Amino acid sequence: MRTIWLEPDGWSVGIIDQTALPHRLTTARLASLEDAAHAIRAMLVRGAPLIGATAAYGICLALRADASDDALDRACATLLRTRPTAINLKWALDQMVAAVLNRPRSERVAAAYRHAGEICEEDIAINTAIGKNGLPLIEAVAARKKTGQPVNVLTHCNAGWLAAVDVGTATAPLYLAHDNGIPIHVFADETRPRNQGASLTAWELGQHGVPHTVIADNTGGHLMQHGLVDLVIVGTDRVTAGGDVCNKIGTYLKALAARDNNVPFYVALPSPTIDFSISDGLTEIPIEERGGDEVATMSGRTATGAIETVRIVPDGSPVANYAFDVTPARLVTGLITERGVIAAARSTLARAFPERADAAE
Amino acid sequence: MRTIWLEPDGWSVGIIDQTALPHRLTTARLASLEDAAHAIRAMLVRGAPLIGATAAYGICLALRADASDDALDRACATLLRTRPTAINLKWALDQMVAAVLNRPRSERVAAAYRHAGEICEEDIAINTAIGKNGLPLIEAVAARKKTGQPVNVLTHCNAGWLAAVDVGTATAPLYLAHDNGIPIHVFADETRPRNQGASLTAWELGQHGVPHTVIADNTGGHLMQHGLVDLVIVGTDRVTAGGDVCNKIGTYLKALAARDNNVPFYVALPSPTIDFSISDGLTEIPIEERGGDEVATMSGRTATGAIETVRIVPDGSPVANYAFDVTPARLVTGLITERGVIAAARSTLARAFPERADAAE
Repeated sequence: MRTIWLEPDGWSVGIIDQTALPHRLTTARLASLEDAAHAIRAMLVRGAPLIGATAAYGICLALRADASDDALDRACATLLRTRPTAINLKWALDQMVAAVLNRPRSERVAAAYRHAGEICEEDIAINTAIGKNGLPLIEAVAARKKTGQPVNVLTHCNAGWLAAVDVGTATAPLYLAHDNGIPIHVFADETRPRNQGASLTAWELGQHGVPHTVIADNTGGHLMQHGLVDLVIVGTDRVTAGGDVCNKIGTYLKALAARDNNVPFYVALPSPTIDFSISDGLTEIPIEERGGDEVATMSGRTATGAIETVRIVPDGSPVANYAFDVTPARLVTGLITERGVIAAARSTLARAFPERADAAE
Repeated sequence: MRTIWLEPDGWSVGIIDQTALPHRLTTARLASLEDAAHAIRAMLVRGAPLIGATAAYGICLALRADASDDALDRACATLLRTRPTAINLKWALDQMVAAVLNRPRSERVAAAYRHAGEICEEDIAINTAIGKNGLPLIEAVAARKKTGQPVNVLTHCNAGWLAAVDVGTATAPLYLAHDNGIPIHVFADETRPRNQGASLTAWELGQHGVPHTVIADNTGGHLMQHGLVDLVIVGTDRVTAGGDVCNKIGTYLKALAARDNNVPFYVALPSPTIDFSISDGLTEIPIEERGGDEVATMSGRTATGAIETVRIVPDGSPVANYAFDVTPARLVTGLITERGVIAAARSTLARAFPERADAAE
């Protein structure tokens, strides 16, 4: 199963509605630009690569209704507004515009669907390469362990196949190691306020049979102090030309703990997540602020099986909800990309992806 | 209102049942040793100072039933087993034993109630002194601010009056500053898994009219990176002779972020929280592991006003629940005690509390 697919009708788009996980595996059908924009905005789909793929299909659906330049512009503007932080969204829109703009209107819809499909296939190929490139990091730890002792990996949020079209980014080396018979165990940060770790990463790992333990976000530092984490691997929503890493809020705290305890801190990313147009993550990446209800309330399954939302914050107490933070490059041990594991630095990024770096100059 | 009191009958003990907050302010009555032990174990009461006070009254209730040496021993053993991390529990039991042991049985009950009352009054006096000693730290920040701009303080978990008999430790300087007309604003970490920040600190601050914002535990680092936190003040469950600070899980992560961003990180503590018998917090303080349901489920108020518990982790996913972590002394800017603000170091602690340091040698 993938997270996004073309329906049998050949034009509408199927997705997993991730807001229902882990309690129900539900799908939704996108039949218009507005459906796609809503799916991104309301986080039926989330994860930088999947946001990009969904936006690509959003352009297809928009062009199907109106293949004019104006409509294309409006569709891009609408989709770009849905979520500000993950750069894959803009990358996918730029790709789609380039694929259709110089074509006659009559060819645009077909070209758009063709290119959206290519973006999805490319995502899977990239993530598969990330898995292969990250595997030696896990093998190296496993080689130092006694036979049967698992490699303990901590991850934050969900950078699994649910965050991409398939395979995932941070999880790609983990699934590959597990499938190759290397014993691994994953600490999945709950990832408040939306619990992507508890509800998505834990579900994914469970489905795949990967041993794991869900922990409160507060826990990672303690685990690292006591030698219970061998390495950290997270995903990212945007990496700057200088190697700063924007990812789910709280990632920075785990990177600090990793540094303080000499635990390697890796970031897995497909190259569309690199934003070569900016350098300083702290000042140049817009950090999405979402509704306070995500912090003030929590949804889950009651004892009777119903899905219920409960309020946990007192009435009248204000709430702030920053969705991402930035981990400075100095705290990152390495970037696991489709072209190898590289240092989080301007020179190494430019050398690994010269065509992207040059285009941004 | 205090968190613990003698009921009008002159012997049973009233407490706020903190598990019902913030949605209901409910009290409970403790009429036996087992009632007191249960209240501590199930966290109807929590917070290092209040655990100590409740244990003291637990001894009273035990002696009332049986004033023998054996019963006293058994009561101490029962209470000591309830929670392992906060040293105030052992401190209070030692105090109570010293107050009654050399007395004839016929005098023990009265002596015990007298001493438990003194422990409670002393807690309030200590916390009031902590407030006065911590106030200049806030005044100094306020003096650097433009008129009307609030001093932004981040706190983790609840070290307010609900964690003590009254006044609180970390909140004592905050309430005093607020009452003195200094504009302050408190970021209250939600504090998963039990949400003491969202459910207790936010409620306390709201009742007292102190401006505050509830944030996910993941958020503090981002706020500090952007200059939105002027200082951090937390409580503690045990401080070693060397100044290591054990506090609610996640405190260490905030201390790391404070250090990385040059934000002062203060710990407020009454001297009974100091354990002069140990030095290395990381290896010598037992870290309580609690039930996984605290992570896997969440309780709150539904739209219809009912209190409901929802599961947020997939069935079958294991959960780990470490309740505390240790912040090494090197990350602590200062300890706010009833005898002044001192460095988190062996020499300064011994100089400030020579009678405690000498007794431990």
